[in-house]
Amino acid sequence: MTTAIRSEFDQGIALTPHPDEPGRYEAELGAGWQIGGGVNGGLLLAVAGHAISLANSADNVNGTDNERSADAANGAAAHRHPLSITGHYLSASRPGPASVLTGTVRRGRTLTTGTASLVQDGEERLRVLATYGDLTTLDGEVATSAEPPVMPVPDACIGVEHAPPQLIEQAALLERFDLRLDPATVGWALGQPSRNGRIQGWFRLADGRQPDPLLLLLVADALPPVTFDLGMPGWAPTIELTVHLRAVPAPGWLRVSHATRNLAGGYFEEDCEIWDEAGRLVAQSRQLARAPRPA
Amino acid sequence: MTTAIRSEFDQGIALTPHPDEPGRYEAELGAGWQIGGGVNGGLLLAVAGHAISLANSADNVNGTDNERSADAANGAAAHRHPLSITGHYLSASRPGPASVLTGTVRRGRTLTTGTASLVQDGEERLRVLATYGDLTTLDGEVATSAEPPVMPVPDACIGVEHAPPQLIEQAALLERFDLRLDPATVGWALGQPSRNGRIQGWFRLADGRQPDPLLLLLVADALPPVTFDLGMPGWAPTIELTVHLRAVPAPGWLRVSHATRNLAGGYFEEDCEIWDEAGRLVAQSRQLARAPRPA
Repeated sequence: MTTAIRSEFDQGIALTPHPDEPGRYEAELGAGWQIGGGVNGGLLLAVAGHAISLANSADNVNGTDNERSADAANGAAAHRHPLSITGHYLSASRPGPASVLTGTVRRGRTLTTGTASLVQDGEERLRVLATYGDLTTLDGEVATSAEPPVMPVPDACIGVEHAPPQLIEQAALLERFDLRLDPATVGWALGQPSRNGRIQGWFRLADGRQPDPLLLLLVADALPPVTFDLGMPGWAPTIELTVHLRAVPAPGWLRVSHATRNLAGGYFEEDCEIWDEAGRLVAQSRQLARAPRPA
Repeated sequence: MTTAIRSEFDQGIALTPHPDEPGRYEAELGAGWQIGGGVNGGLLLAVAGHAISLANSADNVNGTDNERSADAANGAAAHRHPLSITGHYLSASRPGPASVLTGTVRRGRTLTTGTASLVQDGEERLRVLATYGDLTTLDGEVATSAEPPVMPVPDACIGVEHAPPQLIEQAALLERFDLRLDPATVGWALGQPSRNGRIQGWFRLADGRQPDPLLLLLVADALPPVTFDLGMPGWAPTIELTVHLRAVPAPGWLRVSHATRNLAGGYFEEDCEIWDEAGRLVAQSRQLARAPRPA
């Protein structure tokens, strides 16, 4: 038996199929992915997203030979990438074992819709609804009018090593990242938030693991809450996060921007864009989060 | 027995609780809400959203007296508004009877998360996952930096009566609307799309029924597809639509803008903002849709 050295992220989203219950997977939520006392919501979405991807493939290798050939012929085997995935966060996850229960809503020729429930200690933490396809088979036309965020090169940005110690302390997951924030959007770390409602920077994993679709689910929730830039420090729990994956990311740095334009009634939206090193807008996400309570 | 005169929209989303199955509701999808051969996706989301709202209230009046008092004390009775609602569109709906099956995922003190499946002829049309609360109880602070879309007053905009006949023919639902599009964003109707990827206008219901949270779910998918403005006529089926409701809308006109910035790989995102007559950003939505196939 050989032991492959896995990246921290691949270890973080690793799943073991339950021997008796098809569609059920066992996970081990790592302490290294914590933020503010819970496991990061993007990592949880990647764990659940991974489970649906495995379930879609497994559905495909079960069944009769005829069903398998039909699936292979219509390409259903390849519904491994979430095109649109929504997670509703129900309770805070802790490091330790968790189960993911998946279900298929509809399997079509080009798209499969499915659900996942992440359960820990008998309590549901996260419910997911998603539509999967295969990003590698999409037609090549790109007519994006959006422009990537403008910021200095990574070496002119602010690394995590300069973050306030109390932030690092609460955010073990930052040690997994090579995150370089645009100096124009980190005034909050020095007590001078820009109040523009924007935080942006360069992202890659510290251990060199290259981006892929599942990593983008983590990245969509990886930056500090955009409310820091509004002068609101504190915890901003995600109610719901939806990510659209639009292309397989190229290797290298990702450019990530978070912005909010509507903080009201105790909630705010956080829009995230993720651009790859080839200049492609590879993911767009939006979350609804609870605004931090005044200290 | 008296018969109340109901608005077209209230009739469109009317539901009858199933006598034997708690959480199941019967609907009648009206021919007047069709577009491009199917029932409009926003109307379907409003039907499913209505069902979850009823189910949340019904959960609350069932159970023991003690449970009822506990619910009343913690305000759970009032989880009647979707704060974040996501629908995945599985197959095209036709006018006629449909059933909505609801389920509760988690009932909390301030939020309840639930699901709905809209089923017709034994086939699932729409799967919904949503978190509900009570918009009337949110704290009053508003710090919105977004600006409402700038456009001429309704009387200087283009009414539906000027739409191309082939559009009206395919879109019975337009007769339910008093929709006035900004002249700057209707060049496509004359064969001169701006190619900015934006369509905006004023919206109210033709029969004078005032806006409320459920109506906003319809409005989020009520304008012509924004791809018209990119010079791509044709049907743009919604894969997934997520709406965040942020406030109860004031009576009067709604200002609605649709925009896309990332048409690629055969899909595009459509972002919608809905502003009420009091100048409040009451809803934000995003959908992932399939780009129209070239004619």
